[in-house]
Amino acid sequence: MNPLGIQDEEFIRGNIPMTKQEVRILALAKAKIRTGDVIIDIGAGTGSLSIEAARQSETGQVYAIEREQEGIELIVKNAAKFRTANVNPILGKAPQALNGIPRADVIFVGGSGGHLPEILQAVSALLKIGGRMVITAVTIETLSTALSIMQAKEEFQVEAFGVQVTRIRKVSASNMLQALNPIYIITVTKGEM
Amino acid sequence: MNPLGIQDEEFIRGNIPMTKQEVRILALAKAKIRTGDVIIDIGAGTGSLSIEAARQSETGQVYAIEREQEGIELIVKNAAKFRTANVNPILGKAPQALNGIPRADVIFVGGSGGHLPEILQAVSALLKIGGRMVITAVTIETLSTALSIMQAKEEFQVEAFGVQVTRIRKVSASNMLQALNPIYIITVTKGEM
Amino acid sequence: MNPLGIQDEEFIRGNIPMTKQEVRILALAKAKIRTGDVIIDIGAGTGSLSIEAARQSETGQVYAIEREQEGIELIVKNAAKFRTANVNPILGKAPQALNGIPRADVIFVGGSGGHLPEILQAVSALLKIGGRMVITAVTIETLSTALSIMQAKEEFQVEAFGVQVTRIRKVSASNMLQALNPIYIITVTKGEM
Amino acid sequence: MNPLGIQDEEFIRGNIPMTKQEVRILALAKAKIRTGDVIIDIGAGTGSLSIEAARQSETGQVYAIEREQEGIELIVKNAAKFRTANVNPILGKAPQALNGIPRADVIFVGGSGGHLPEILQAVSALLKIGGRMVITAVTIETLSTALSIMQAKEEFQVEAFGVQVTRIRKVSASNMLQALNPIYIITVTKGEM
Repeated sequence: MNPLGIQDEEFIRGNIPMTKQEVRILALAKAKIRTGDVIIDIGAGTGSLSIEAARQSETGQVYAIEREQEGIELIVKNAAKFRTANVNPILGKAPQALNGIPRADVIFVGGSGGHLPEILQAVSALLKIGGRMVITAVTIETLSTALSIMQAKEEFQVEAFGVQVTRIRKVSASNMLQALNPIYIITVTKGEM
Repeated sequence: MNPLGIQDEEFIRGNIPMTKQEVRILALAKAKIRTGDVIIDIGAGTGSLSIEAARQSETGQVYAIEREQEGIELIVKNAAKFRTANVNPILGKAPQALNGIPRADVIFVGGSGGHLPEILQAVSALLKIGGRMVITAVTIETLSTALSIMQAKEEFQVEAFGVQVTRIRKVSASNMLQALNPIYIITVTKGEM
Repeated sequence: MNPLGIQDEEFIRGNIPMTKQEVRILALAKAKIRTGDVIIDIGAGTGSLSIEAARQSETGQVYAIEREQEGIELIVKNAAKFRTANVNPILGKAPQALNGIPRADVIFVGGSGGHLPEILQAVSALLKIGGRMVITAVTIETLSTALSIMQAKEEFQVEAFGVQVTRIRKVSASNMLQALNPIYIITVTKGEM
Repeated sequence: MNPLGIQDEEFIRGNIPMTKQEVRILALAKAKIRTGDVIIDIGAGTGSLSIEAARQSETGQVYAIEREQEGIELIVKNAAKFRTANVNPILGKAPQALNGIPRADVIFVGGSGGHLPEILQAVSALLKIGGRMVITAVTIETLSTALSIMQAKEEFQVEAFGVQVTRIRKVSASNMLQALNPIYIITVTKGEM
C-alpha cells in the first residue's frame, strides 16, 4: 500500500474545484481502504480522491463517476500521471450512472447535483456488508440530508465531524493565517441487517 | 502497509492526554512513512501515534520517548494490544533521551517540556536528508518557536496549517456540534545542504 | 445606551448552559437594538442575553421566556444584580408562552425544545415590519430548519454565519488554545410584504 | 450611543483590506467604549473601526493613524458618509505618529508594519489607568509578540481569543459554507501600578 498524502499541486487541475489535501487525507482514512477493495467515487471532479483510493486499493478497482466532460478528461490525465490503471472514469450522473457497477467496499459521495436522497438510496444498496460510505458536505443541505437519511436506517452506523483547516503562509517575515472552507465528513458503516 | 485510522477508544488510556484521531491521521499522512522507516516520537504520551507509525513502517523501528512512567506503561500496553513489536518505549526527557538513537526518516515532536529549541536543534541533526519532521503545537509558544527556528534553517522546507475538528454527536433527535481544541501541525522536510 | 459585553463570570449561573460572551455580543449586534425596542428572548436560560438586551433597549421591555423553573430563578437574580427592571421573566414553553406578548422589534430564538417550526411561524407574525429575528443554532437540525423555513418566506431577508471561538488560556509559560463549541447565528429581517 | 454593527458593504472601500463586521463587533465590544472616551486606532485602514468607535464615543475623539495615503482618503470619505466629525485622520507610522496625541481610554492596534514591540511600549504609556487596548492579530508573529510583551507587564491584565467566522451563502437551493480568515483578538486592561 502507498502512503497517503499527494500534494494538491501534483494533480493536473482545470476549473473544477478540488478537495483539498487535508480533507482528502481524512476522507481516505475514514474509508479504511484495504488492498483489493472495490471503490466508487461519486462526483469525482479532478480524480484526486479516486487516485489516492486506487493507490490504497492497489489490486482493486475504482469507479470514478463525474458528470462533466472536463472532469473526465482530468481524471484520465491524472490517472495516467500517477499510473493508477485501476481508475475507471465514467461520464454520467448518479444514481443512473451507477448501473452495472459491482457492489463496493467503499463509496465516496462528494457531489450529488441535487439528487442526494436518490443517490443515498442507491449506494446504500450497492455497499457491501461491512463497507464504508464517506460523504463530504460543503453545504448545510447535504450535511442535514445525509445525517437524517442515514441515521434513519437501522443497519448503518453513522459518525460525523466538521473540519476547518487554516493554512499558514509565510509572507516576508510573517506567518499569515488563511482559512480554507470548512467541510463536514459523514462516515457510514453498513452492518448486518 | 496497514490503513491509517485506529479509533480513539481502541487505545488503552490513562490520565495522559491523547492526540485525537483526526489529528493523528493528518500528522501521519504528513510524515509520509514508508516501509522500513526509522521513526522517533518525542512526547509519545499513550503511544497512539507511535503505534500507528509502527504499523505504517512495518519492518522499521519506532522510538517512543516519554518522560512520564504512566505514559511508558500505556505505550507498552498499547503496543502489546496492537502487536507492534517494533515500538521501543524510552523513559526520559528530550533532548537527553535521544542519545544513542539512530538517524531517523521521520521525527514527531508532540511534547517538549519547555525545551523546544534544544529539541529542534537535536532532531534537526538526527533527521536524515529527505526526512520529515512533524511538530504538533497546542500552544502559541510552540507554534511560533517552531516556525521561527525551522524557517531560519536554509536546508529545511517548512509547511504549516491549523486544524479545528468539530465532532457531531447525536443527542435524541438532534446532531450537536462539539469542538475539539485546535492544533497546529508544522511539517519540515530536510533537503540537501 | 450601555456598552455591550458583560463578562460570563459576572452572571449568576446554575446548571443551565449559558451562551458565551463572544456569541452574545455577536447576537446582540446583529439584533441592532435601539432605545425603546420591545424584545422577546425565547429560551432565555440564565437571562444573560435578555439582560444585555434590556441594557441596550433601556426604556423598552424584554420578555424572557424560559421553560425551566431554575432558569426563571436565575433570570430574576441576574436582572436584580444588573438592575434591569425591564426584564420580564415568563415561565412556559414557546409558542404557547407567546400569548399576550406585544409585537416586537427584536426576537431572539435560542431554544426551541423541538418546536422550532411552530415557534418560527409564531414569531414571524409577532415581529414588526423592519424588526430583526436572531436565531442561534447549536445543532444541525436547528440550523437547517431555520434556514429552510425562513428563506422560503418572501418578506424576510436571511443572513447567516457560523462562529468558532478559541479561548487562549495562560498556563505557566504557555498560552493554550481551548475551543468553545461552534454556533451558527441566523439573522432575519422582516421587510414590507 | 449608537448600536454597533455597520454592514461591511456600507463602507466605501478601496484596495485596502478591511476588518470584517463580525471581528469589528467583537473588537469594539471588548473595548467597552463609553461616551466621551478618547480613542486611538493604529493601522486604521478604511476607517471602519474608527467610525464605529466614534459613534460609540459620541462626544469623544478618535485618532485614526494610517500610513497609506489611500487609507487616509477612505477614512475621510467614510467619516463624511457616517457623519462622524470626531474622527481625526493622521497620516503616518506608529509609534512616531503618536506624538502629540493625548492619553487614551481605548487603543486599537490593528497594524504594526513590523514595529509591534515599539508600538506596544508607546501605547502602554499612552493608555490611561483603567483603559483598554485591543490588538487584532492576523499573523502568528503579532499574536505571540503581543502576548509575550503584554503578559510580562505586571500592571496589565491580558485576555485573548481567536475567532473563525464562516459565512453562509445561498447559492440556488443550497447554503454554502465560506470561511473568513481567522483572527486573534488580545484585550489588555491597564490597572494600577
